[in-house]
Amino acid sequence: MKEAKQGTPLYHVVKTLIEIAITSGNYQPGDQLPTESQLCEQYTVSRTTIRLALQQLEFEGMIHRIQGKGTFISAPKIEDALNKHVRSFVEQMKDLGLQPHSKIISIGLIPATPHLSSVLNIIEKDPVFKLIRLRYADNKPLQYATSYVPWRLAPELLQDDLTGSLFELLSSKYQLTPYCAIESIEPIVIDDTCSRFFDVPEGSPAFLIESITSTEHKVPIEYAHLIVRGDRLKFVVKRTFS
Amino acid sequence: MKEAKQGTPLYHVVKTLIEIAITSGNYQPGDQLPTESQLCEQYTVSRTTIRLALQQLEFEGMIHRIQGKGTFISAPKIEDALNKHVRSFVEQMKDLGLQPHSKIISIGLIPATPHLSSVLNIIEKDPVFKLIRLRYADNKPLQYATSYVPWRLAPELLQDDLTGSLFELLSSKYQLTPYCAIESIEPIVIDDTCSRFFDVPEGSPAFLIESITSTEHKVPIEYAHLIVRGDRLKFVVKRTFS
Repeated sequence: MKEAKQGTPLYHVVKTLIEIAITSGNYQPGDQLPTESQLCEQYTVSRTTIRLALQQLEFEGMIHRIQGKGTFISAPKIEDALNKHVRSFVEQMKDLGLQPHSKIISIGLIPATPHLSSVLNIIEKDPVFKLIRLRYADNKPLQYATSYVPWRLAPELLQDDLTGSLFELLSSKYQLTPYCAIESIEPIVIDDTCSRFFDVPEGSPAFLIESITSTEHKVPIEYAHLIVRGDRLKFVVKRTFS
Repeated sequence: MKEAKQGTPLYHVVKTLIEIAITSGNYQPGDQLPTESQLCEQYTVSRTTIRLALQQLEFEGMIHRIQGKGTFISAPKIEDALNKHVRSFVEQMKDLGLQPHSKIISIGLIPATPHLSSVLNIIEKDPVFKLIRLRYADNKPLQYATSYVPWRLAPELLQDDLTGSLFELLSSKYQLTPYCAIESIEPIVIDDTCSRFFDVPEGSPAFLIESITSTEHKVPIEYAHLIVRGDRLKFVVKRTFS
């Protein structure tokens, strides 16, 4: 390809052709694009042109690169509006029209570490219920979720049915109704363990979300440590100027 | 080290020793920790014990691992409260007690891409003012910020003094007062360019923040594409249950 409509940069033409290949269904979200060299050959253009085209596509969120792995087609992300009330994972997914389910990875009791004792406001080494779940939206893994609940608040949790919403269980059986949560949001890269659970390459971007949920009487009932796939979720927030 | 106080797991002792080395100032934020093998030798413990100790330190946010690079000492992060009103970068940093400044990387006019025309609500190929700045907090790079402003709204921007707050300039000179912004927040990994500007390894986690800022009359005045160091910032949000 040597010529293009006057005034339209060549990279823009190539970008549009690749865009058409994506939107027409030739590529599915998660599919890997050919390498830069292969694309150079396919469109008979220089590497600079391909790079500019890919940069533009990346900028518009249609593709993403994973270092050392290649370029992949992006799926539209789930948007979590941070201004809205928070709900349980189950309710939140249903609101978004997605089918939630969870797989339990492990359940157990551990002694409170200094960190857990501080966030859950309990004595160090007090027993803490620890639950690790892999949470799915529409059958695709979304979150690797570790929940910690003070054992004294809900002493039968080990025997309870944990396949549904933990908050619903805490509320209905133990009268521990979630009232507010403090969340912190950080970017991380996915490690070996999560990479296998999520079936995405190690080193992919993800959110680390930590939350402390309390009752109306300010009793912390859960500390959660969530690793959420960055290719499936983004946060959206509307802010006003002071 | 073969013995420890009864009841205290060995990894916890090692973790505490490393923690003391960090908090006593033997290590500074950004410093690299010795490798697992070196730590095994230093504390005469098994690799499993070192791993557990490091896991705990990572969990508590004192250290972070960068794939293929090693383990580094973390600095306390800047906390951006998402519930609060948004302000200009300059005001925001000052509120946090940090000294802001910016270095201009490039200034120019570009024709609006389809994406820019859609977010800025202008005609495709209309001129758009593009400004890339490296923004610092307390003399350390924090953001690689690209701002796009419709040229017709502020036709003298190329000649204006851009070393201060862009919002302040748009407001005082062009009567374009920021009123509200829609922000999206995604995790990404740092590429080669940002790695050099930030002086952090390629592949480190970062935030990609995109925002569209509009006036009270819903006129979009800026589209911003910000890459923010993940080792220096976290978002904090207080949410209530419905």
